[in-house]
Amino acid sequence: MNKSGRRQGAPSLDFVARNGLIHRRALLRSGLTIAGALGAAGSSTCAAAEPLVDAPWSLAVGEVMPSVQTPSPFEKGVTRALSNPNGDFRTSHARTPHHLLGGTVTPNGLHFSINHGGVPNIDPAEHKLVIHGMVRRPLEFTLESLSRYPLVTRIAFVECAGNSAPMFSKEPLQATVQMLHGLVSNAEWTGVPLSTLLDEAGIDPMAKWLVAEGADPQFLDRSIPVKKAYDDALIAIYQNGEHLMPGNGYPMRLLLPGYQGNMNVKYVRRIKAINQPAYSYFETKNYSQILPGGKTWRFHFLQEVKSFITHPSFGLNVKDSGLYAISGLAYSGTGRISKVMVSADGGKSWGEAALQGPIHEKAFTRFIMPWRWDGQPAILQSRAYDEAGNVQPLRAEFVAMRGEATRPVTTPLAFPNQHYNSITSWAVDSKGEIKHVYA
Amino acid sequence: MNKSGRRQGAPSLDFVARNGLIHRRALLRSGLTIAGALGAAGSSTCAAAEPLVDAPWSLAVGEVMPSVQTPSPFEKGVTRALSNPNGDFRTSHARTPHHLLGGTVTPNGLHFSINHGGVPNIDPAEHKLVIHGMVRRPLEFTLESLSRYPLVTRIAFVECAGNSAPMFSKEPLQATVQMLHGLVSNAEWTGVPLSTLLDEAGIDPMAKWLVAEGADPQFLDRSIPVKKAYDDALIAIYQNGEHLMPGNGYPMRLLLPGYQGNMNVKYVRRIKAINQPAYSYFETKNYSQILPGGKTWRFHFLQEVKSFITHPSFGLNVKDSGLYAISGLAYSGTGRISKVMVSADGGKSWGEAALQGPIHEKAFTRFIMPWRWDGQPAILQSRAYDEAGNVQPLRAEFVAMRGEATRPVTTPLAFPNQHYNSITSWAVDSKGEIKHVYA
Repeated sequence: MNKSGRRQGAPSLDFVARNGLIHRRALLRSGLTIAGALGAAGSSTCAAAEPLVDAPWSLAVGEVMPSVQTPSPFEKGVTRALSNPNGDFRTSHARTPHHLLGGTVTPNGLHFSINHGGVPNIDPAEHKLVIHGMVRRPLEFTLESLSRYPLVTRIAFVECAGNSAPMFSKEPLQATVQMLHGLVSNAEWTGVPLSTLLDEAGIDPMAKWLVAEGADPQFLDRSIPVKKAYDDALIAIYQNGEHLMPGNGYPMRLLLPGYQGNMNVKYVRRIKAINQPAYSYFETKNYSQILPGGKTWRFHFLQEVKSFITHPSFGLNVKDSGLYAISGLAYSGTGRISKVMVSADGGKSWGEAALQGPIHEKAFTRFIMPWRWDGQPAILQSRAYDEAGNVQPLRAEFVAMRGEATRPVTTPLAFPNQHYNSITSWAVDSKGEIKHVYA
Repeated sequence: MNKSGRRQGAPSLDFVARNGLIHRRALLRSGLTIAGALGAAGSSTCAAAEPLVDAPWSLAVGEVMPSVQTPSPFEKGVTRALSNPNGDFRTSHARTPHHLLGGTVTPNGLHFSINHGGVPNIDPAEHKLVIHGMVRRPLEFTLESLSRYPLVTRIAFVECAGNSAPMFSKEPLQATVQMLHGLVSNAEWTGVPLSTLLDEAGIDPMAKWLVAEGADPQFLDRSIPVKKAYDDALIAIYQNGEHLMPGNGYPMRLLLPGYQGNMNVKYVRRIKAINQPAYSYFETKNYSQILPGGKTWRFHFLQEVKSFITHPSFGLNVKDSGLYAISGLAYSGTGRISKVMVSADGGKSWGEAALQGPIHEKAFTRFIMPWRWDGQPAILQSRAYDEAGNVQPLRAEFVAMRGEATRPVTTPLAFPNQHYNSITSWAVDSKGEIKHVYA
């Protein structure tokens, strides 16, 4: 670095693992830079030989400014993938297009949704939340009354326990990150701590469970340990600054950071304190984890440590050899991400990725690994670690513990099992084409 | 607290300043709680005497899930305020409705915009950014080539230097937070550090300024110190996870955290390294700060430490006496917010508000102060402090330094001067009605 603080001269690359993974210190400003090398690759930048040409949009007055702006028409392909676009009489899933997004916030329009009876259109003036059961005095709240409370803001991911379910398939499905892992999203949530409301109602110390029930047509209900309510549960009323989206629980939802999405009851209208779980539909059927041998785990609430590479990935082939940034998302229901390791040779050698701070607990963390692709086949993987000491399991470990689908899985819309948190592998061939593989 | 971790018994309130300001420790879970007192006020909650009644939306199938979800129809009033809704041949402003939002993220649809020739509809495949001038090799970038770089993510506010300009009026204008302070927003931005690109182009150590130019019909151009580029400037390509909004610079913009919005050149198509500033239109006319006596400051780039109360505020009257959470936004172009003080008696006595963490530098911080309104007149104010030791000036101090409008200001759309960062005062009368006052 020269005295003006600018770097000069050709950078040298410091490889940390095979197939071109470069030490993350290359990303630090005070250290080496990969910028020159990227230019030298000749593909992603080029010398500006021609003078600037004025484009049509520079030569005419633009569009009228709208009261609520929407993405550019050139982004019209950036949408949620719908499992039930005609609204047939069954569950509807909308998956987030993580392979087309950057950063860590999921914009509200693209937050994943799962609804079992369509999306209710709730009048917030008519919606009430009742807290009752084993409490000294039952209480009733509206959006307006909750708004008067001191509100707490936090970033949190919400993930369907069935996210990544196609990964239980014995054969890897060829599908985008959106189709494999799109049932998880990350937002800034603002609301009232549930503990505040339970204290106000005077919950009985003998009450160990809460049954939360939504005002959706299914009256979806789940049992929540009282301990979780006192840990970090919110009744959320804002999502990324504005009131909740209709598909995410408008006008209010339960937020249980790190617990399976289905428990984060949307449109919540009732919280009943009782001394045993309700054994409701979703906790006795859908979300009882099936183990090899046919046994099941009851009340397996946690969304465990996980990561996947979003760039490059299936559908986003690499073009020319040279430098790339491998980028992806990591998160854990048990706290902050402490480390993400990346491999370019299918798990034989690993290098530590750079993490984008600040790192929030139970929230998306973006990781980045500089990579020089030499045009040879490579297999890209990521493996996340959290501050509680949990490690994302390798696929063989995971399959041994949790099993595989017993029948062929033919579509990424299938849910052969729950709670997949093992590794995703992207194989890059010599043409730069990317396939989903198990490695 | 009993052994189950739940609080019991009536909380006692600990007042820190006159007119009902309560110590922020009331918000801490391990300390006293105001929940019981809030219930006791009788207004914001009520005992749930009647059984739950099933609402119409619980008894019929809901709407079909959309591929991009939008806010509830009941939120249709939550929009940006437009200064030029018909797109007449003049500047258009769209102001963020902070009095209707919560948390700290501004959702993309509601991020403020100012455009001088309409909103350009740019084809990202045809848009190029050229870096040239005093560099070893001029370079050219597209959205696609920038996407290959290691991307940096950060939260940052962007504020028009003319935000809060109606506060220069000698008489307080009766207007919402949106109309007074709506030309500032806060988002998660993701992009390439400008320093990376300047290094790659090989910037000449003699170059002290960059002239950034947009592809908008005005070719808006501003001079940027090279030092700022090496401090924390980005070429941003994502905003809250998705590509930039058309009104915020799609497909790429300069992001200069803490510097006046106009310098964060949108639709950036050219960055030219030179050894002196360009003295362009906006830096010599609009944004030369006019001081009392008629002198001006050149190159007054910084958006200084500032705060305002969003809840309650003009248009959001309080109803019944009892407990409220006074809530607002604080930010500073010189770093992290270190403290926000709140007064309920027009600045005679102050109490320290709770800050919602994590606190990011040059980004919105939400502050909260519990308040028991006794039904008597009160004047609510907030005053922010930052980690660099800067303090939001009192109004008398500010007017002495920076002056007032010399002519009557009749509309909040006027811009009598720039860079207002003094205090906003909301007077609550005995009916709970709120007026904007100077105090």
